[in-house]
Amino acid sequence: MNNLKITLEYDGTDFVGWQYQENGRSVQDEVEKALRQIVQENIRVNGAGRTDAGVHAKGQVANFLTSKPVDEARLMHGLNGLLPKDVVILSIERVSEEFHARFSAKGRRYRYYISRRPTAIERKHSWLLQYNLDVAIMTECARLCVGDHDYASFCKNGAEVDHHRCMVQKAEWTVDGSMLVFEILANRFLYGMVRALVGTMVEVGRGYRPLEAFGSIKNSKNRSAAGMAAPSHGLFLEEIIY
Amino acid sequence: MNNLKITLEYDGTDFVGWQYQENGRSVQDEVEKALRQIVQENIRVNGAGRTDAGVHAKGQVANFLTSKPVDEARLMHGLNGLLPKDVVILSIERVSEEFHARFSAKGRRYRYYISRRPTAIERKHSWLLQYNLDVAIMTECARLCVGDHDYASFCKNGAEVDHHRCMVQKAEWTVDGSMLVFEILANRFLYGMVRALVGTMVEVGRGYRPLEAFGSIKNSKNRSAAGMAAPSHGLFLEEIIY
Repeated sequence: MNNLKITLEYDGTDFVGWQYQENGRSVQDEVEKALRQIVQENIRVNGAGRTDAGVHAKGQVANFLTSKPVDEARLMHGLNGLLPKDVVILSIERVSEEFHARFSAKGRRYRYYISRRPTAIERKHSWLLQYNLDVAIMTECARLCVGDHDYASFCKNGAEVDHHRCMVQKAEWTVDGSMLVFEILANRFLYGMVRALVGTMVEVGRGYRPLEAFGSIKNSKNRSAAGMAAPSHGLFLEEIIY
Repeated sequence: MNNLKITLEYDGTDFVGWQYQENGRSVQDEVEKALRQIVQENIRVNGAGRTDAGVHAKGQVANFLTSKPVDEARLMHGLNGLLPKDVVILSIERVSEEFHARFSAKGRRYRYYISRRPTAIERKHSWLLQYNLDVAIMTECARLCVGDHDYASFCKNGAEVDHHRCMVQKAEWTVDGSMLVFEILANRFLYGMVRALVGTMVEVGRGYRPLEAFGSIKNSKNRSAAGMAAPSHGLFLEEIIY
């Protein structure tokens, strides 16, 4: 069997998310339909992470197995010709049979974009927030995220996981022109985690909750203790690290 | 009379251009409709430059006269509430009665984005060109643009102008990740000029025409001598200089 790793970019605006759903347009389904048409085999792809409806990706990774011979460059070219314009294959490479996009991943990097002024150009790729925000205190919150912590409070209910521990290697806010950008790198992410973290940090940044509350939310291990989820259209899956 | 200067951003994707047209959605019309609703006067705005269908703007400028008293901050807030999401007012300031967005402008700055690989996220804001391009020779072309030249060869037929001389202060190509960006600053631009320049430089960069041809095209003062116009969706009006 050939095992192929594909790296892809998509604009999540018009998708129900990465994962196949009975109703609605999923990235996985678009990729599988295009692959089946070219490879002429009933291919299933394993995605490294399931992005929600509206979430974008600059470096999503998936792998698939096929018994057919494949020329990677030609396959990529063919897929990009068949796929709708909001999904693009960035690379295809042959990998060892043990490689699994999800289970082999060592880390994932996300970015969240908050626009501090209305923007026509970036309106579908950022969350518009014109309130005063104390970026210094949000930076303190981000610092509290780094390390090995239980993130149950920032996990959407209903996700089946053995445990809620995540090793966060980097979490920081930076200012880039009129954008406020949150970047987080961890070994794994729970369902809805980045959006719950951003939403809660924004509540601290607005002065609705003190900095100390951020620590207690983490310790409570209770999703209802955290803030509202930030909207999906500001979130980008940037990279999967192997 | 109060004379107000507005700076605005728009995503040109779903517009027939800046200027009012009988059929289709223009930026000017959207802005005028919103202004009339708030100021309750039959307002007309003067745009600094007419952008074509599909062209974007990060810093278009317009001005309008009104006899009504206006609070700039409240007006801006009100307009952004009424305007569709693909037009945003960035600032409003009171200016002297002599100010005219178009005639007072001393310079204009445009950028053109060429994407060197397919992109889902930036697909509506860049021209996808995967051919080999000799950026060094395109840089030579850009250098030839700088100075006071007759640009008749790069002007769409049908535009009524007294002369075709433009003083180009800056014209250069830069590489930014997978984007190739052309920036040009001049006192004025003729109809279709940036897109004709980019299209012609790309033909030189692909090796279809020698560098020397670029100089002769300029000297021929004949639009049919130049290359095809680059598509509108890669072009941004960045700034109007007063």
